[in-house]
Amino acid sequence: MAEQAKNIKVPEPTIRRLPAYCRVLKAFQQQGMEWVSATDIAQELDLKPIQVRKDMSLTGAEGRPKRGFLLNELLEILLQFLHWDENQRAVLVGAGALGTALLGYSGFAMNRLEIVSVFDSNPEVVGSSIYNRTIEAVSDMEDSLTKNPLPVGIITVPAAAAQEVADRLVALGVRAIWNFAPIKLKLPEGIIVEQEDLSSGFALLTVKLHS
Amino acid sequence: MAEQAKNIKVPEPTIRRLPAYCRVLKAFQQQGMEWVSATDIAQELDLKPIQVRKDMSLTGAEGRPKRGFLLNELLEILLQFLHWDENQRAVLVGAGALGTALLGYSGFAMNRLEIVSVFDSNPEVVGSSIYNRTIEAVSDMEDSLTKNPLPVGIITVPAAAAQEVADRLVALGVRAIWNFAPIKLKLPEGIIVEQEDLSSGFALLTVKLHS
Repeated sequence: MAEQAKNIKVPEPTIRRLPAYCRVLKAFQQQGMEWVSATDIAQELDLKPIQVRKDMSLTGAEGRPKRGFLLNELLEILLQFLHWDENQRAVLVGAGALGTALLGYSGFAMNRLEIVSVFDSNPEVVGSSIYNRTIEAVSDMEDSLTKNPLPVGIITVPAAAAQEVADRLVALGVRAIWNFAPIKLKLPEGIIVEQEDLSSGFALLTVKLHS
Repeated sequence: MAEQAKNIKVPEPTIRRLPAYCRVLKAFQQQGMEWVSATDIAQELDLKPIQVRKDMSLTGAEGRPKRGFLLNELLEILLQFLHWDENQRAVLVGAGALGTALLGYSGFAMNRLEIVSVFDSNPEVVGSSIYNRTIEAVSDMEDSLTKNPLPVGIITVPAAAAQEVADRLVALGVRAIWNFAPIKLKLPEGIIVEQEDLSSGFALLTVKLHS
């Protein structure tokens, strides 16, 4: 079922909600729950049960009448759908405040994001350690990533430096870039770019606050 | 027109895209452009022109046949729609790496977010200054915000401390909370909560990378 569902185009808002579903399911699991309903999940997240049900069916998960979903099975399907059942090895460039925040972010506990290498251009930071990773010099990036290629790149450098960093990462074999710099990257076709715009959440907040 | 459009429920993905539109329009404005088409904007952001046109019409903006949008007018409509034509005075609690990153985030240039007060519980940080704001002690929050109430609260404390901070902020008159802690807050009806989940962007990335 999960395999079949992947061929359907799943809407972005659904995918955005899946990590929260996984988090809620994990918490239920720790409480010893065996079965879970869309209503249980919806309540935890202030969503409508119909929304949760729709999202679940888009991932290929199937509930059973009157019982809901088998919790462990559902969590497994969601994690598989997200490819969070396998390690996502990544390089992070830019060990400033935002990079440091990502390295320490507890919300990533579910996603198997494994930030293997961290680079920064600031000589005062290079060689020091943040959350058990030693910061390498950006000038050593070619050397380091040629020896140890990584598929995912996370960019947390200032906007002015982001395009150059992205180009170098792509040249070094990175196939997906998670870009936190507020600039649109221009990259070759076939490279996945996920543009993180912290202003988007604030836009939702201000629109809701004034509506 | 803009007033009218506000009564229609504008979908979340549209609102999420508006900050990027504003950024692109600002850049075009600085290049001296007077008219702009949906295609111009779409190209900058790797979107389809039809998507941009649809989003614009949802905000109440009206293009003119063959000429597109009057740039200054369009930017004004979008900023008005987002309520980014007025200052959004906010308090930030948690001056760790994530809080510091938000205080220095250049992507907020457009949104008139004015972080007036910053609180932290770490005595080593209290009294120091980050991006020209002096960090106050969380224990002084009641005192400080009673004298100087703020409508928006940004929470960048660890998950375990977030609910208590949120309760205190709400008691002090905060009406909208932007929560970066990976925990669902339980708050009274009528309080706006925008839950920022940094895992959501990563979910989009991993799904795209493996599809």
